[in-house]
Amino acid sequence: IVARQDGQLQAMLEDVHYADVAEIVNGIDHIKQATYLIKLLDSDKTSDVLTELDDDLREAILKRLSVKEIADELEELDTDDAADIVAELPPERAKKVISHIEDKEHAKDIIELLRYDEDTAGGLMAKELVQVNENWNVLTCVKEMRAQAENVTRVHSIYVVDDEGRLKGRLSLKDLLTTSTKTHIKDVYISNVDYVDVNTKDEEVAKVMSKYDLEAIPVVDEMGRLVGRITIDDIVDVIKEEAEKDYQLAAGISQDVEADDSILELTRARLPWLILGLFGGLGAVFIMQDYEEFMSNPELQDLFFFTPLIAAMAGNVGVQSSAIIVQGLANDIVKGSLWNRLLKEVGLSLINGLALAVLVLAFGYIMNYDISFSLTVAVALICVIIVAALIGTFVPIVLDKRGIDPAIATGPFITTSNDIFGIFLFFYIAKLILHF
Amino acid sequence: IVARQDGQLQAMLEDVHYADVAEIVNGIDHIKQATYLIKLLDSDKTSDVLTELDDDLREAILKRLSVKEIADELEELDTDDAADIVAELPPERAKKVISHIEDKEHAKDIIELLRYDEDTAGGLMAKELVQVNENWNVLTCVKEMRAQAENVTRVHSIYVVDDEGRLKGRLSLKDLLTTSTKTHIKDVYISNVDYVDVNTKDEEVAKVMSKYDLEAIPVVDEMGRLVGRITIDDIVDVIKEEAEKDYQLAAGISQDVEADDSILELTRARLPWLILGLFGGLGAVFIMQDYEEFMSNPELQDLFFFTPLIAAMAGNVGVQSSAIIVQGLANDIVKGSLWNRLLKEVGLSLINGLALAVLVLAFGYIMNYDISFSLTVAVALICVIIVAALIGTFVPIVLDKRGIDPAIATGPFITTSNDIFGIFLFFYIAKLILHF
Repeated sequence: IVARQDGQLQAMLEDVHYADVAEIVNGIDHIKQATYLIKLLDSDKTSDVLTELDDDLREAILKRLSVKEIADELEELDTDDAADIVAELPPERAKKVISHIEDKEHAKDIIELLRYDEDTAGGLMAKELVQVNENWNVLTCVKEMRAQAENVTRVHSIYVVDDEGRLKGRLSLKDLLTTSTKTHIKDVYISNVDYVDVNTKDEEVAKVMSKYDLEAIPVVDEMGRLVGRITIDDIVDVIKEEAEKDYQLAAGISQDVEADDSILELTRARLPWLILGLFGGLGAVFIMQDYEEFMSNPELQDLFFFTPLIAAMAGNVGVQSSAIIVQGLANDIVKGSLWNRLLKEVGLSLINGLALAVLVLAFGYIMNYDISFSLTVAVALICVIIVAALIGTFVPIVLDKRGIDPAIATGPFITTSNDIFGIFLFFYIAKLILHF
Repeated sequence: IVARQDGQLQAMLEDVHYADVAEIVNGIDHIKQATYLIKLLDSDKTSDVLTELDDDLREAILKRLSVKEIADELEELDTDDAADIVAELPPERAKKVISHIEDKEHAKDIIELLRYDEDTAGGLMAKELVQVNENWNVLTCVKEMRAQAENVTRVHSIYVVDDEGRLKGRLSLKDLLTTSTKTHIKDVYISNVDYVDVNTKDEEVAKVMSKYDLEAIPVVDEMGRLVGRITIDDIVDVIKEEAEKDYQLAAGISQDVEADDSILELTRARLPWLILGLFGGLGAVFIMQDYEEFMSNPELQDLFFFTPLIAAMAGNVGVQSSAIIVQGLANDIVKGSLWNRLLKEVGLSLINGLALAVLVLAFGYIMNYDISFSLTVAVALICVIIVAALIGTFVPIVLDKRGIDPAIATGPFITTSNDIFGIFLFFYIAKLILHF
């Protein structure tokens, strides 16, 4: 690359899949070199590579391309990918780029797609699809389809619309091939078709498509008119992003960051949760100060050695309970009443708590602790585990009912609050039992 | 259902999609009633519903069906789904069921699929596909394809093989329709085709398919012969399961459990991690006992109030660092040397640590702590955060290099070890600074 042997590089890259080229370009640290490589490619490959690049790199490269060059790339892309790229440009530049697109129909479609939110069906869909009118006969239909299929990379389904463009149903390729050419579409189409609204959330679309094993789903507007379709490969991305987001939230990382992002971006994503944890820890300091009197009793000051253990158990149990509930909510399998579920958690925690209490008693015996001291720790541990499990179950369900993403309740949020509750409960119970 | 109004129920269920029927059946607590409902359905719907049911419920229902009934359902299913169901039956029963399948070809395919591990390409693939010989001409090809397509729910690609059945390439439907009927396949097929081996891990298949946006991928055996194909809907399930597994591991849940599983199953998945946490906590008790002398100094005994804070910060930072690395490893974007990455973590932790240290100093000022005491806590906090971040980055990378799933390093494992390290470091540094 450094030597700029255009011919050789071009020949090499020609046979490489665009996803692999994107991987190579992503690996280049120098933006200048990356741009140079991008410009070397065939135009139809460039456009595909562009869609696969990391966001930051794509932005940098687009800055170095002329308005005309970008417009050329967009012509090669499906409307959904093209709209995604335009959405990343500064508004002024986006306008210029669109005015340079020669295929006016394509430009119109892109502008229409820009209207929709990124995380709705409208933002995911492409305008490329094959549609036929219910009043056509099979012959007209086949002719029209051929023309339309030119623009569509992969034909998944043929959608049937009425004269107003409203979605009526779908047509199977098999039926089309086996019926007489004079039959009207009206008489052969399947009226039972799944579809989503332009405003449907992307997660909802993903749920519907994976539940019914669909490879494409038509999208209708508020009036029921067919306006686009979403294919399964876009949904795979949604599912992955969703899973990554939940995972990061559970780990206390608030924005969509990657290992290769800048230190500043990573700090922005991580520091807020750490500050939350710090305040939780300072809260625990306050609580323990109230029980400072234990310190003066040589037999009881050892209780303070157990605070990290209690806090850790409260945190672990809370995270476990909340993770199961959050996952259940995501898969729509949390049914039955809240009370039954809480009751189940109590049962579960009792079993876990008793098992752990036995271990604590054994530890106390080996360490020659006073039996009442060991019992205090054990009983407090059981109570803490039960309360932690209840909080872990209760909070995500309540958040979900209020329309808040329950995934935020699985990370530092639940750990921190359970730490404080746990330590408070621990000392409170200790005081009760030891009659201080 | 209770009233057993067969006719009415049957009519109602006829129009419902099988995935919805499965959801209804999953919601029925009574196995008898669920079985009754299943038996009411049309045979081709029953089989689809069966594949969508929860594992436990399906097992229970299959027990209540005769060998002949199960065989009938299997005939309706694609080979991959059928093989999955057979694999769940006790070996004796499975043999009997297979012997009752009338379509011997189908039975043979199922037996073949049972040979492969569940989590390999062989275990995911279906035998249903459309293949043509490179020596045929287009006319023969179209005829053969019609016959084969009968058994295939959705035709994604037409695969081209040689006389020995080895995969040579694929054929586009468009090319097939636009070339003369006498052309040989040899002259029109596309030799550039992605494929996987029967032994390829399912995660690897998912990576390849989502990277190249494939909707189906052919599977070859050790000799390069085409033996099956995997479709994107199966991959969506793999991606989801993978994400859920990582998420559960990060939360300290070791098996694939759901909110609705029995208390015993949930305990088995959760208790081991809690015991790990308990041992960590007991380890911390040991460490603190070594610093019991602090207790006798009224100015220094307050250090013990800060142990939960230190432990929580060490745990949070460790989980954040490891989560980013684990996700990066899963997406193949962790490149560059380990040292650079560790250096970056140190920089990041320094920024986070300094910000948090300032807050601690402010807290100490408000609370009228001795300045040397506050400084001790602040300095220790910074050190703990840096070490926790290094451990969180180092451990998953090393695990990954040794072929162990790094996801186990994100949950209680990293929290527990960081708790202990953190507390040890805290007291060690305190002793150093305060010259005890």
